[in-house]
Amino acid sequence: MRKAVVLLSGGIDSATCCGLARRDGYAIYAMSFAYGQRHAVELDAAGRVAQFFEVKQHSIVNIDLRAFGGSSLTSDSPVPKDREVSGEAGDIPDTYVPARNTVFLSFALGWAEVLDCYDIFIGVNAVDYSGYPDCRPEFIAAYERMAHLATRAGVEGRGVKLHAPLQTLNKAQIIRLGIKCGVDFSLTHSCYDPAPDGRACGACDSCRIRRRGFEEAGVADPTRYRGYPG
Amino acid sequence: MRKAVVLLSGGIDSATCCGLARRDGYAIYAMSFAYGQRHAVELDAAGRVAQFFEVKQHSIVNIDLRAFGGSSLTSDSPVPKDREVSGEAGDIPDTYVPARNTVFLSFALGWAEVLDCYDIFIGVNAVDYSGYPDCRPEFIAAYERMAHLATRAGVEGRGVKLHAPLQTLNKAQIIRLGIKCGVDFSLTHSCYDPAPDGRACGACDSCRIRRRGFEEAGVADPTRYRGYPG
Repeated sequence: MRKAVVLLSGGIDSATCCGLARRDGYAIYAMSFAYGQRHAVELDAAGRVAQFFEVKQHSIVNIDLRAFGGSSLTSDSPVPKDREVSGEAGDIPDTYVPARNTVFLSFALGWAEVLDCYDIFIGVNAVDYSGYPDCRPEFIAAYERMAHLATRAGVEGRGVKLHAPLQTLNKAQIIRLGIKCGVDFSLTHSCYDPAPDGRACGACDSCRIRRRGFEEAGVADPTRYRGYPG
Repeated sequence: MRKAVVLLSGGIDSATCCGLARRDGYAIYAMSFAYGQRHAVELDAAGRVAQFFEVKQHSIVNIDLRAFGGSSLTSDSPVPKDREVSGEAGDIPDTYVPARNTVFLSFALGWAEVLDCYDIFIGVNAVDYSGYPDCRPEFIAAYERMAHLATRAGVEGRGVKLHAPLQTLNKAQIIRLGIKCGVDFSLTHSCYDPAPDGRACGACDSCRIRRRGFEEAGVADPTRYRGYPG
């Protein structure tokens, strides 16, 4: 059984990646990060998704991205609400965490090497997204080229494949694909600014993209929102 | 004053990088990692070097590379001693830490972005080295291309420059260059398997490369060795 490291945040995209990896017959090694995010409740969601898909191992890595600050997701500055999500790359919001995907992929790469695994899944997408530079297809392609040279696998002529199967899909398409793969989206979490009881704010970028996605997919949104019941 | 993030392990190479960055007029932001290495005494050396060069800030990032194991540097398996150091890329030793430089550079990239800094120094070299894949020039070049696409700087058309000024130098040349830049090598540490009092073993790859380097450079080695006094 081929192994795959799947980056699992606990949101819609990474849960769908998990579903795809399972559908494709991989033994799943899920990796999540405690990086000082204010929405650490997403780690509970990651745990639920990992359990649901019976992953071989779920590794939660502690890293301190707060050390260098620079994002409203890892600081006490307010999360922007009710703004228009343009999805244009020139418009990078406050919630962007510098080099986050680069850091996450680097840990995945190290783990993959130890596991003797040549497949890494990441749920980035460049359609319904927040304009983060490290979600773009050209970034993923450049990362894969670099990864090939960074590891023992590359030296031995065996490259690491970086799977980003959601890259060209919009959120509604991802939701439909996830449902086909048996994802239970009630286990997932998206909100950047949840209430203490875990309910989503409904108004941050992530909630807005999620809500619109379910609406466009014609699928009932199982999320418990605070103040946005409809 | 231009800023530079300098990866600082506390060894000969990174201390020389610090010296070069200072010579070239950069304001230095030094970054070190506590990654579960058994030779954590190198962090004390990094602190001494940072202080010596009056860096603007010295950030020590806690990361857990032990989480996925795979190296004698982060586990309890013995460090290899007295082996021939071939420096050929096909011959990767047990002390190789999977994806270590990839992980380190990713943190440096994130910090650089927050600091509004476009220069990162790393002391890798591909001559007197242990055959690690992530020390090769083609890795550094691929990392720089990826970094350009990963960040705000890249989106804004301003790339991040990855400086690896020691890439083509042997250890003796690095030591001579360091001395020209005013590096005090008595502050540095190289040994993978030091005694509790910090003295170097003299027999691991890193000690052997260091000793040979000072010898070839015709410079007195200020290291305190245990059992290798000569």
